[in-house]
Amino acid sequence: MNGDQSTSGFAEIDHGRYARIGIPEAIYAPGKSKSQLIAIAREMDKKNQGPVLITRLSLEIAEEILRTFPDSFSMPNLVKDANHLYSVVISANAPRDKKVVIVTGGTTDLPVANEAAATLVACGISCEIISDVGIAGLHRIMARLDHIRTFDVVIVVAGMEGALASVLGGLISAPLIAVPTSTGYGASNEGATAMMAMLASCAPGIAVMGIDNGFGGACAALRIVNRLEANYSAAKL
Amino acid sequence: MNGDQSTSGFAEIDHGRYARIGIPEAIYAPGKSKSQLIAIAREMDKKNQGPVLITRLSLEIAEEILRTFPDSFSMPNLVKDANHLYSVVISANAPRDKKVVIVTGGTTDLPVANEAAATLVACGISCEIISDVGIAGLHRIMARLDHIRTFDVVIVVAGMEGALASVLGGLISAPLIAVPTSTGYGASNEGATAMMAMLASCAPGIAVMGIDNGFGGACAALRIVNRLEANYSAAKL
Amino acid sequence: MNGDQSTSGFAEIDHGRYARIGIPEAIYAPGKSKSQLIAIAREMDKKNQGPVLITRLSLEIAEEILRTFPDSFSMPNLVKDANHLYSVVISANAPRDKKVVIVTGGTTDLPVANEAAATLVACGISCEIISDVGIAGLHRIMARLDHIRTFDVVIVVAGMEGALASVLGGLISAPLIAVPTSTGYGASNEGATAMMAMLASCAPGIAVMGIDNGFGGACAALRIVNRLEANYSAAKL
Amino acid sequence: MNGDQSTSGFAEIDHGRYARIGIPEAIYAPGKSKSQLIAIAREMDKKNQGPVLITRLSLEIAEEILRTFPDSFSMPNLVKDANHLYSVVISANAPRDKKVVIVTGGTTDLPVANEAAATLVACGISCEIISDVGIAGLHRIMARLDHIRTFDVVIVVAGMEGALASVLGGLISAPLIAVPTSTGYGASNEGATAMMAMLASCAPGIAVMGIDNGFGGACAALRIVNRLEANYSAAKL
Amino acid sequence: MNGDQSTSGFAEIDHGRYARIGIPEAIYAPGKSKSQLIAIAREMDKKNQGPVLITRLSLEIAEEILRTFPDSFSMPNLVKDANHLYSVVISANAPRDKKVVIVTGGTTDLPVANEAAATLVACGISCEIISDVGIAGLHRIMARLDHIRTFDVVIVVAGMEGALASVLGGLISAPLIAVPTSTGYGASNEGATAMMAMLASCAPGIAVMGIDNGFGGACAALRIVNRLEANYSAAKL
Amino acid sequence: MNGDQSTSGFAEIDHGRYARIGIPEAIYAPGKSKSQLIAIAREMDKKNQGPVLITRLSLEIAEEILRTFPDSFSMPNLVKDANHLYSVVISANAPRDKKVVIVTGGTTDLPVANEAAATLVACGISCEIISDVGIAGLHRIMARLDHIRTFDVVIVVAGMEGALASVLGGLISAPLIAVPTSTGYGASNEGATAMMAMLASCAPGIAVMGIDNGFGGACAALRIVNRLEANYSAAKL
Amino acid sequence: MNGDQSTSGFAEIDHGRYARIGIPEAIYAPGKSKSQLIAIAREMDKKNQGPVLITRLSLEIAEEILRTFPDSFSMPNLVKDANHLYSVVISANAPRDKKVVIVTGGTTDLPVANEAAATLVACGISCEIISDVGIAGLHRIMARLDHIRTFDVVIVVAGMEGALASVLGGLISAPLIAVPTSTGYGASNEGATAMMAMLASCAPGIAVMGIDNGFGGACAALRIVNRLEANYSAAKL
Amino acid sequence: MNGDQSTSGFAEIDHGRYARIGIPEAIYAPGKSKSQLIAIAREMDKKNQGPVLITRLSLEIAEEILRTFPDSFSMPNLVKDANHLYSVVISANAPRDKKVVIVTGGTTDLPVANEAAATLVACGISCEIISDVGIAGLHRIMARLDHIRTFDVVIVVAGMEGALASVLGGLISAPLIAVPTSTGYGASNEGATAMMAMLASCAPGIAVMGIDNGFGGACAALRIVNRLEANYSAAKL
Repeated sequence: MNGDQSTSGFAEIDHGRYARIGIPEAIYAPGKSKSQLIAIAREMDKKNQGPVLITRLSLEIAEEILRTFPDSFSMPNLVKDANHLYSVVISANAPRDKKVVIVTGGTTDLPVANEAAATLVACGISCEIISDVGIAGLHRIMARLDHIRTFDVVIVVAGMEGALASVLGGLISAPLIAVPTSTGYGASNEGATAMMAMLASCAPGIAVMGIDNGFGGACAALRIVNRLEANYSAAKL
Repeated sequence: MNGDQSTSGFAEIDHGRYARIGIPEAIYAPGKSKSQLIAIAREMDKKNQGPVLITRLSLEIAEEILRTFPDSFSMPNLVKDANHLYSVVISANAPRDKKVVIVTGGTTDLPVANEAAATLVACGISCEIISDVGIAGLHRIMARLDHIRTFDVVIVVAGMEGALASVLGGLISAPLIAVPTSTGYGASNEGATAMMAMLASCAPGIAVMGIDNGFGGACAALRIVNRLEANYSAAKL
Repeated sequence: MNGDQSTSGFAEIDHGRYARIGIPEAIYAPGKSKSQLIAIAREMDKKNQGPVLITRLSLEIAEEILRTFPDSFSMPNLVKDANHLYSVVISANAPRDKKVVIVTGGTTDLPVANEAAATLVACGISCEIISDVGIAGLHRIMARLDHIRTFDVVIVVAGMEGALASVLGGLISAPLIAVPTSTGYGASNEGATAMMAMLASCAPGIAVMGIDNGFGGACAALRIVNRLEANYSAAKL
Repeated sequence: MNGDQSTSGFAEIDHGRYARIGIPEAIYAPGKSKSQLIAIAREMDKKNQGPVLITRLSLEIAEEILRTFPDSFSMPNLVKDANHLYSVVISANAPRDKKVVIVTGGTTDLPVANEAAATLVACGISCEIISDVGIAGLHRIMARLDHIRTFDVVIVVAGMEGALASVLGGLISAPLIAVPTSTGYGASNEGATAMMAMLASCAPGIAVMGIDNGFGGACAALRIVNRLEANYSAAKL
Repeated sequence: MNGDQSTSGFAEIDHGRYARIGIPEAIYAPGKSKSQLIAIAREMDKKNQGPVLITRLSLEIAEEILRTFPDSFSMPNLVKDANHLYSVVISANAPRDKKVVIVTGGTTDLPVANEAAATLVACGISCEIISDVGIAGLHRIMARLDHIRTFDVVIVVAGMEGALASVLGGLISAPLIAVPTSTGYGASNEGATAMMAMLASCAPGIAVMGIDNGFGGACAALRIVNRLEANYSAAKL
Repeated sequence: MNGDQSTSGFAEIDHGRYARIGIPEAIYAPGKSKSQLIAIAREMDKKNQGPVLITRLSLEIAEEILRTFPDSFSMPNLVKDANHLYSVVISANAPRDKKVVIVTGGTTDLPVANEAAATLVACGISCEIISDVGIAGLHRIMARLDHIRTFDVVIVVAGMEGALASVLGGLISAPLIAVPTSTGYGASNEGATAMMAMLASCAPGIAVMGIDNGFGGACAALRIVNRLEANYSAAKL
Repeated sequence: MNGDQSTSGFAEIDHGRYARIGIPEAIYAPGKSKSQLIAIAREMDKKNQGPVLITRLSLEIAEEILRTFPDSFSMPNLVKDANHLYSVVISANAPRDKKVVIVTGGTTDLPVANEAAATLVACGISCEIISDVGIAGLHRIMARLDHIRTFDVVIVVAGMEGALASVLGGLISAPLIAVPTSTGYGASNEGATAMMAMLASCAPGIAVMGIDNGFGGACAALRIVNRLEANYSAAKL
Repeated sequence: MNGDQSTSGFAEIDHGRYARIGIPEAIYAPGKSKSQLIAIAREMDKKNQGPVLITRLSLEIAEEILRTFPDSFSMPNLVKDANHLYSVVISANAPRDKKVVIVTGGTTDLPVANEAAATLVACGISCEIISDVGIAGLHRIMARLDHIRTFDVVIVVAGMEGALASVLGGLISAPLIAVPTSTGYGASNEGATAMMAMLASCAPGIAVMGIDNGFGGACAALRIVNRLEANYSAAKL
């Protein structure tokens, strides 16, 4: 019922976004066909002024995108099954010197952490993932506090009751971005419990993103990193 | 439109509850008139086989109850304003040797902690309240861990995101009862956020009560204490 | 997109949990790949100080785990279809003398009851499941009250409106842990109705776990059993 | 800003309802002024073909209505404070021989039970209220089962988790109408928990009304009683 | 992981329910395996004192049940696809003279209506389904009012906003049971919108069941029909 | 803590809205002080290009506004108590020839209907309120159908289950705007039940506004009336 | 279990709807079998007085319908995968001169926009879709304002937070119909977030439809267009 | 029932928070008595290492605090009535050179904006409030974009559907913190609609706080400002 795909008639790409606000327009894969995704990626690769990336791809389409764009690369997702979604970076920025750390409560939070990491890497930001340090074994996070304090921005990715964000919020002075995930069954309410808990946190100044929104968490970090760089450049003058 | 009060026709007191399951039937004040409350308390004081207490009284009625029953005493509530509710113990059990600790996240959780304490004290259980040690300043709870570990049962009373329960749950081996409170505004959702977070906790084996249900938290502790005593007696034989 | 699995980089196992709080770190299978699960189980089997178990496995992976670990055994789940999840015990504790009973409202609550039983059995606790005694036919539970009263802790597993917990709560003095399940359609709201009803119960001192959280219910029982044993040992001296 | 009240322009009374479906149009007081209520009651008293009653009046207005209509009478509400609402019957039907029983979980459910009783009494139905027999003390309801079985219809009025409806539903063969009430704090969720629990009940054939809707519960009973009478008359021929 | 099925150890059938309260214990198929279903049905067919039926079967298992029990029959479901569920009557009561009508808002409400019809037919009640007469075309229901008035009990089955129940409630004097269905997308909220609307209906005395609970709607009708028959018999004496 | 009020610093009035989109900027009173309201009204009366009105005033402030602005007038609200809110028109448009009808389910919906009427009258639209014709007595609305069909736009204002909108939607061809109200207790859920029912209506093309948003309903009608007039003018040329 | 299909017994088609209220009765495909759909379409094609269309078909059944009815045509859906649903117009009205524009926030909103377009095209209304102009890149919608102002009615189709409706509502005077979609993950809450945001919009007079209800949005537009035409005809006389 | 107040026994002040994470421990007034508030403020004023402030005071207590602490000052709240809450700064930091702008959708959002401003001012941050520039009149915010771009951090405070955050998010590169407010009635759902809309925003990188949490929004800004200063100092070396 429809033939070949071009982006005319269905997609109106915001090619100027990176120049305008320093944040890339990522292609959000769910609900788009393979041919649509490739058509959009091609047009962005040609005309876009910033990095190009696609998030939440199925493994099958991710592999086709990787074959289609020779310079593209995928973030290593640790778990390889039908439910997980992949991010592919088609063209990336030059490396920058600011650093972001992504801390996860458990292993199952990794796909969301990886989406955030892919976005930051595409923009040239160096980032490290510290995985599975939830507060049920509090010593795991306590042992890494000094290391975490060396980063410019901290992103916490956690499901269930998301208390890792509250604990870090009382111990760390850096900007703290909390991304609730839909891990955990039943009372976790598909991520709503973690999201509400982060929003009601007793630790001050925790900034919260939507459920599973790793891309959004990275963008909030980017806004801060961009301002730090502008600030730094001004100071250097 | 109604005359003097006796309990016949509206209340069917469960005088045998303490003998049957070791838990007192407390009189829940909201929605009952002063004359009804006194009528019920009188009948319980006469016929009941266990301790007698009234929870969630307004200050005005609490003071009248205290005048009416000479041996009664009230739990010292720290805050004295129209919104707070008082518990009055009309007759108490002999002291027992098991100990329960009640830990609160903040000062505003005290009325619920006091309701729990009143219930335990009425049953002869010694209890201590450790107040305002929420995890936004993690050192406050860490400094008291060894002391908390000396108790038989731990009741955590906390609002907002209730993360104090999760942190204690990973560090303490004792039975842990979590009572969410309706403190905090907006995203705290009148206690539902703390309740859901406690139910979805990553720390294992946290047992959760309804919102602001200090009486219930004390009863869950009583069930454990009663079993510990029976067990201890058997061991002694 | 990912090669062989070791736990380094994604899992930070809390090997000291059993020694610290007397509760095993179970491996929660959903969202982890087969190779990840085996890698984690191997590491735990080697280094862990307590029992090792995996919960909520699909039948296919459960059977592979059983082949991989010669001493492992699975809890007999009564229903054998794609939706049900299996628990496998890889190494268990020596038997202990405390006893826990698990009472279910209906046949469809059995998978959750089995998860709880597997956790207790791994820790050496003897446990019995009394199945399908919901209150629509009240005589079924009434006929078993004397037997249920012989146990140290009672776990109630029920869906729909979860009224079995309330009925037992008024009749039994033992510690009572209620695990709501997601059985029942529509108004059961995937377990939320049973969970809220248990939290709002008129029977005093019912301690509630998250929806379908059989593992959590067992852990709450373990906390009590551990304290009973410590207490008993002290009394014996 | 407005003068004397007549019903023209704001109320369109359904005078034929009792003749049409055998259920009276009650005047629902909240949101109507005293003068409006008296104007509507006067017009109904003059033109209406069935009984006339006003529900959920404040004490102050109830007393004025009683003075205004010499034959009116009020249902005896047991608790006399500002929050409770009164029902006044302005003209009643001749007595009929069918009987309805209203069973409440606790004393605080009485205002809703009284609203139901007022509606039935206005229609000539004899009714009895059995109060405070919630299942936390199961013997209270068990002792009255034989008496309850003598009624044509059973209305259960209960808050908190509303389990009284489920227990009766498995033991009683009569038509069973469950009215959830907004009693209980926090997890009772202003009656929603009891309502959802009654709708998800494992006991078969429980018919549920909206929260605190005592009038509705009486109307559902009336539909059944009316049919029983029609049926009985036909059988007698 | 499990061998042959008998009901011992997992199912505790309430064989006396029909004798006790006049309502059959139906076998609810979801979450039970084929062998379990046949084992339970066999035991019920042998020992049960009333009709035997299984609800919400997949087509495949329904057909096997029909082959296994020679006298069994299935209710004709109008739509034959993977999502629909079947009811099978294994043994039925003798026909009785009371009549129930089931009215549906739309074609997609038929599976729920059929479940109700199967339950009534198993108990010997004659019933008629009037399908697809929702109020968007009000003439459809108005044209059938006189016919509907000839029945003893009316069951309304409707999804979306469920207004058909309210319209009938203002026009019909018979007992009215409303079963909300999960038909309709988005704002229908999987049946919750219809359920809440029926509970908040301005038409008096509508008794509401849980979402998609056709079995429950039939049981509520049965309670009324049983009382009508007892009443009729008494009148005839 | 604050002195006299001018609008500078807190309010940024959109004086051009009426010229831009044909809808007046109304002053929404809740949360604004009396002096703020008068300051804003003065500035709008001076500079605004369209009608000026204030909605949801308390009686006390409404009367002061009426004294302050000699040409102002208030919509006659039928009920005069503390909870009701008043609309005051400070300057109105010239009369226009399009007509809107506002239909309410019950007397308690009148305050919302009056807010809508005040807005239309301020814009010169003639409007009629037909009150208390809810579908529990279906003949009331059926008798007025021909009259309602003479209007250009129909606004339905209803609480409880809001079924009046669905019934009219199947019978009337005019644009139909539904305003849910927060009338009704408990299961009405402060208007959410009516709102969701209107959004899920089986009658096609019902456009829904937020709860109690009489102003919004009038604005939606205004958009249609403005277009009808532009269209009519074009046709006349 | 069922044979050939005719519509008798399950569907009661409202053939007079188009004549009565100017809106077609569309056949809603989900929950109906292929044979049922063809039977209903045949009967409507024969007897119906207006356009005939089927919405939300799977690709497979859509193609069979297209083969069965030679004059039928399908709306070109841009994305061709299993989750998307197709609309087929079986017989259409003559073209009319009023114009509707459908504006979408993103590419994934297109299936809902297409359902609306199919309904309008079936009724002879010319319509244009402007896709992917969400406010994250505000220049996209600003550049098209003058074009959008040339239409008689504007339908906004948007998911996530649905802010496109609010922005247009402050800039455009035409009747504005907002259709929330279930696009976006997690915090979008399957469309509920967009729906609530549109209902709470600060822009005045936005009329809201149920989630994903493109058909409903078109019907609301049809009511306005029909009135504009009647008005125009009257003016011409 | 309680005498004079000291903080011992109920409050455990986190005096080191400002030194530890650069965020002050504010005293949250609701639920604390006047004597408690003064006792806590006195102790903080004496021992605390950073600024001291109390938020959400009633006017009466605010004035007493101002009299008690001679150097204290209050943020000018624009509206002076019983519902509004005041912030009092008891001791403030030296001025710093970073700047934060607070943008509100409407006048009624000002109390929350003021709480944020008080917190920033106490910490020495210069801040400006731009009030009442919601998107219903889009020109208001567009005219101020260049000015807003001169600030280091932007805080958006908005109720209703909160679309102002989305619009700014697509136009501004600075870190953007969104604080939803509970303004607006009915469908605004006491701030939940704005909060969910901000979390689901199509504009990238918006960081969201809990409802009405002006203090939290300021703390999130402080984290960024602190990092900018550290960065700037490092660059200067």
